[in-house]
Amino acid sequence: MKNTFGTSVTMTVFGESHGEAVGVVLDGVAPGIDVDENYIKACLARRAPSMTTDTARRENDEFRILSGVFSGKTTGTPICIIVPNENQRSKDYEYGIARPAHADFSANQKYHGFEDYRGGGHFSGRVTAGIVAGGAILQKALQDIGVTVATHISECAELRDKAFYDIKRDRLTLDCAKFPILDEEVANGMIKAIEQAKADGDSVGGIVETAISGIPSGVGEPWFDSVESVLSHALFSIGGVKGVEFGDGFAIAKKRGSEANDVLEYEDGKVVVSRNSNGGVNGGITNGADVIFRCAVKPTPSISKTQNTVNFVKGENATLEIKGRHDPAIVRRICPIIDAVSALCVCDMLAQRYGTDVLKRGVER
Amino acid sequence: MKNTFGTSVTMTVFGESHGEAVGVVLDGVAPGIDVDENYIKACLARRAPSMTTDTARRENDEFRILSGVFSGKTTGTPICIIVPNENQRSKDYEYGIARPAHADFSANQKYHGFEDYRGGGHFSGRVTAGIVAGGAILQKALQDIGVTVATHISECAELRDKAFYDIKRDRLTLDCAKFPILDEEVANGMIKAIEQAKADGDSVGGIVETAISGIPSGVGEPWFDSVESVLSHALFSIGGVKGVEFGDGFAIAKKRGSEANDVLEYEDGKVVVSRNSNGGVNGGITNGADVIFRCAVKPTPSISKTQNTVNFVKGENATLEIKGRHDPAIVRRICPIIDAVSALCVCDMLAQRYGTDVLKRGVER
Amino acid sequence: MKNTFGTSVTMTVFGESHGEAVGVVLDGVAPGIDVDENYIKACLARRAPSMTTDTARRENDEFRILSGVFSGKTTGTPICIIVPNENQRSKDYEYGIARPAHADFSANQKYHGFEDYRGGGHFSGRVTAGIVAGGAILQKALQDIGVTVATHISECAELRDKAFYDIKRDRLTLDCAKFPILDEEVANGMIKAIEQAKADGDSVGGIVETAISGIPSGVGEPWFDSVESVLSHALFSIGGVKGVEFGDGFAIAKKRGSEANDVLEYEDGKVVVSRNSNGGVNGGITNGADVIFRCAVKPTPSISKTQNTVNFVKGENATLEIKGRHDPAIVRRICPIIDAVSALCVCDMLAQRYGTDVLKRGVER
Amino acid sequence: MKNTFGTSVTMTVFGESHGEAVGVVLDGVAPGIDVDENYIKACLARRAPSMTTDTARRENDEFRILSGVFSGKTTGTPICIIVPNENQRSKDYEYGIARPAHADFSANQKYHGFEDYRGGGHFSGRVTAGIVAGGAILQKALQDIGVTVATHISECAELRDKAFYDIKRDRLTLDCAKFPILDEEVANGMIKAIEQAKADGDSVGGIVETAISGIPSGVGEPWFDSVESVLSHALFSIGGVKGVEFGDGFAIAKKRGSEANDVLEYEDGKVVVSRNSNGGVNGGITNGADVIFRCAVKPTPSISKTQNTVNFVKGENATLEIKGRHDPAIVRRICPIIDAVSALCVCDMLAQRYGTDVLKRGVER
Repeated sequence: MKNTFGTSVTMTVFGESHGEAVGVVLDGVAPGIDVDENYIKACLARRAPSMTTDTARRENDEFRILSGVFSGKTTGTPICIIVPNENQRSKDYEYGIARPAHADFSANQKYHGFEDYRGGGHFSGRVTAGIVAGGAILQKALQDIGVTVATHISECAELRDKAFYDIKRDRLTLDCAKFPILDEEVANGMIKAIEQAKADGDSVGGIVETAISGIPSGVGEPWFDSVESVLSHALFSIGGVKGVEFGDGFAIAKKRGSEANDVLEYEDGKVVVSRNSNGGVNGGITNGADVIFRCAVKPTPSISKTQNTVNFVKGENATLEIKGRHDPAIVRRICPIIDAVSALCVCDMLAQRYGTDVLKRGVER
Repeated sequence: MKNTFGTSVTMTVFGESHGEAVGVVLDGVAPGIDVDENYIKACLARRAPSMTTDTARRENDEFRILSGVFSGKTTGTPICIIVPNENQRSKDYEYGIARPAHADFSANQKYHGFEDYRGGGHFSGRVTAGIVAGGAILQKALQDIGVTVATHISECAELRDKAFYDIKRDRLTLDCAKFPILDEEVANGMIKAIEQAKADGDSVGGIVETAISGIPSGVGEPWFDSVESVLSHALFSIGGVKGVEFGDGFAIAKKRGSEANDVLEYEDGKVVVSRNSNGGVNGGITNGADVIFRCAVKPTPSISKTQNTVNFVKGENATLEIKGRHDPAIVRRICPIIDAVSALCVCDMLAQRYGTDVLKRGVER
Repeated sequence: MKNTFGTSVTMTVFGESHGEAVGVVLDGVAPGIDVDENYIKACLARRAPSMTTDTARRENDEFRILSGVFSGKTTGTPICIIVPNENQRSKDYEYGIARPAHADFSANQKYHGFEDYRGGGHFSGRVTAGIVAGGAILQKALQDIGVTVATHISECAELRDKAFYDIKRDRLTLDCAKFPILDEEVANGMIKAIEQAKADGDSVGGIVETAISGIPSGVGEPWFDSVESVLSHALFSIGGVKGVEFGDGFAIAKKRGSEANDVLEYEDGKVVVSRNSNGGVNGGITNGADVIFRCAVKPTPSISKTQNTVNFVKGENATLEIKGRHDPAIVRRICPIIDAVSALCVCDMLAQRYGTDVLKRGVER
Repeated sequence: MKNTFGTSVTMTVFGESHGEAVGVVLDGVAPGIDVDENYIKACLARRAPSMTTDTARRENDEFRILSGVFSGKTTGTPICIIVPNENQRSKDYEYGIARPAHADFSANQKYHGFEDYRGGGHFSGRVTAGIVAGGAILQKALQDIGVTVATHISECAELRDKAFYDIKRDRLTLDCAKFPILDEEVANGMIKAIEQAKADGDSVGGIVETAISGIPSGVGEPWFDSVESVLSHALFSIGGVKGVEFGDGFAIAKKRGSEANDVLEYEDGKVVVSRNSNGGVNGGITNGADVIFRCAVKPTPSISKTQNTVNFVKGENATLEIKGRHDPAIVRRICPIIDAVSALCVCDMLAQRYGTDVLKRGVER
């Protein structure tokens, strides 16, 4: 449904980079959920450019909740959050020159030239400010019923972060970290590599990894609404994500069944998955283990090196040197966005299974 | 929506491995499309076990079209296709012993023991017979309007097939091939490796690659219904798929922007994508280039080696030696299934953009 | 979504009057629900022509459940039910002559002549056999958790039935009645009037009234998924329904607020609606009172009197004398169909609010 | 989907009466549509209280378009429109006393007391300001491709307006009329009757009638997405609508088939419906005739007469004298709201049939 996602808990996005505001409407959230504006601010801050690894564009990300919250709690009716735009520099953009690997040309083909092209318009990463603000409400609600979503940069510039160890605790670490890495040493290396790319007028990609702990077994659907289907649907909606894998993912393709199969055993009278190759999902349905997935994030398309491309207004080849302020890598800023859409998916799947009040009432375990 | 997928063109799946029949209802297909029963048969034959690399279970896959087809053409109303089951061996299964990496345990958690567990029930690959039959109608319709979907095994047992070269022609090759590989030499090596795994009581995984040519630019949506979102949603609904990547996919994460960006240029007055790193999709919308993606396929979970697992009925640990007839690899049989769901996604996206009659009328180019 | 309805509990219809079978796929039904084939038969019998007030076409309505039921209980996965066709007389139909008030012409405009026109094809009342069979499973499940759906003919041929008095008990009466009327005297008058219309080569319409008791308060949504919205959506999908009204309905339009407002009061510590003008729904959400609505049913379009119409194949005016076997009234046969779609709506709304297992687990009151 | 409606063209509503703003997100609108802010203002003015027949609450209804419009035209991406609230008098409301026939009690049952109860919160007619603003864009777009939606009060206080005669022309009349009636004489009588009810501390209901001309034949779906299903779904989402009927509606129930059947005939080589008993829809699909329907509108529940009700916070019976500013009738103000949701339905059905660009490109006839 275009800019709306979800079945029981839904998010609708709107806005353009250089328009008046971006925002979301969240619907289906249980009534009575605490809305912690500081947590929303903290999540927005993790998304906002703030380091040398980010664009020089700085924005306040002042959000306003227009509806659906009363006396600090959700009402159960749609929550509209807007994040007004400021600090645009529209003159950095000329219509017709397709920035390679951006949506300029494909958007022109779809919208016939009526699209708001300034700053990427509706395709801009700016739209994710609304997603993160909305997602923050959901993440907090999930935490309150024992479900944790956490994302770190697992690979960038040939460096690898260490694996998740204790997801609840790791989430706290990542929430506070300027650069969302579990191993501080690795962070420094990655930051340097990103700065180097920037100095070279270039950009780098990476892989980010997400863990969801505390999700009950028996959630999700066989076939078309498998947990992987729903999550990947949301994840691939984020600009820059070009791959999604669950559990062992592409590595599983090289294994034999005897190495790749999950191992289940009883521990204290409860089934646990002691080898979790499938990322917590079998047949589309959770088995009670942590849900683990990774997203491949492409290097930021906007680089200052000269590129060959087309001017589709003039109908001729063109060269492009991008002058605007851009991120040399988005692996840092994408983490809270992935948290947000993952939280949306989890809330939606829980609400479908347990009813609309589950976020308030929690899940019996 | 659980077992239904799509917006304008939809597919609903039903059935269990050892029930009376599996099948699909296809809705939203334009009226007047030729239904070529021989092509459906051919697609089903590509899915059916037939080689040493497959399970020993043999079924006729006799399908029956119950509705929606009149005088050999679609009517525009729902097409129900059933594939009756036969040749089941229910005694091969004992309820309560969770086959590792299968849905036995997660299904029990969701359905509280009421699930039809025989042969994996609704989670069985058997259900894909209906999907392939329905998809065959859509694939044929797409071919008639110049859109080709083709899938080959790109990696298995450390061997790699050659890349797509001419997708229309390659599709013909793959449609006829017993083993869906473009390089016959490679096929032989893979087959031997699969046979070896089988002899070892084990199984192997692999990577399959799909190309969609002829899809017009401007199809898909920004954000939640990106082309990647829609395709990955459908692809991850197929049992055994644990990763999906578009274009350069996970490899792009290791590149710099200057290497990873698409290159657009004019050729004969038309924009072409001469470096297609993004798999034909920018900002969620097609750019006119071939849409290219790969799925990571896990090794078949059913292996005859002894495995440690649980008996969740008895509430105790258990060991399992699977005796039934199973595939030592599903990379071969999964190809027509991926073709089918991909065709569904393309038909749906085209119908949303151009209206319900597009499959009959075609797209102006 | 065309031939699929519902969000959490869904029904997909397929089939044509003179095709191989009609049927439905029911999805989202809680696992573990008893499937009482005798109750399905009884519901189908209420829908089947059996009296002088019905068409002379007689069919066995032998249904087959192809999936989703195991050991007499629902599995939680899609339930496909087919009702094979028999006893068709295709020669009664000539393509091109638009039967007035039927879908012949509008279907031709939509499907460009590819529609299966025989016996009305997919537009035939025959399709409701599948709907009734599927609905019977849901009605039984609702009864088991204390929710009753019942429908009677409230007006026909200027005669009026008495009002619902005790809905649970009235439901039992109506389930057993050949002619679904609460006042036997009135039934005889209506039957005679219908027979008279038949003798005149004509047909009659009427109004049917439905009551749903036992539905908890707080179900439904404000705005677009109000209880009235969802129910009317389903009700207007039934051929022949031209009006739907809740509570006082069109009569309320003539009242003043002081006469028309609901009256709420406490009875035994519980809020009861002692004047239920709004049919149990305020602001789109149930208030705990019985949900009451009425459908206007048009006289059967098929009459044997000569009618002026068009032959849209020949492109000329035509006259038509319908020779086939047809119902002089459908008010009797429509009652179980309305029960079925109403049960679907109620199950769906309950599952959205309380989760997928609600039909098994019931609602705390 | 709760507060979102539509498939291809969708509207999401948000906001509460006494919150910061109400609004909508419109998605799926073709790019390049003129956005005429004056027409939006005119539609909002028709909805705003302005006469003696309306509430004394006056608001400016200053709307702001936050996204989706660029250089005066739609971009094709989501259009968010907000209408800030002002002039609230929250002290007029005490939580716990259920205003009869309002959503106070049912909302409490659904939202457990977390709902924003002030002024009816999300259930307030205030929310329709957003709907009307969004609908105005769609109505204008429809007019530009030859489709007209018009609504008048057909019955109120036992007076009847004359019937539609020339829908395009009548629409112009109604757009300009303070009181949406085709016969000025009748208007004066109705206004007096409404003023009398107000003087009596009471309110009146009525029936409003809508005509849609210019909609092509072949639009809509059989069964669950019939034109009637889709329209009634949207219409019953409007507070105060308790009945919806198409064509002859409830009156058809009293007729015989020979009187009630449509009559089709050729006129200038085109099929016309010379007796349009079914309101332009057969089998759920348009036949090319005007689509005609009527809504029963209940008398405004808010009356100043003393009423018996409950205080559900105190758990006791209560009496209520409503002191706030309220409409003695909403038949006048509901007309532009019905126009808005009808336009939404028509745009959605056209876009599903002809593709997303239909509103820009028009329909070949």
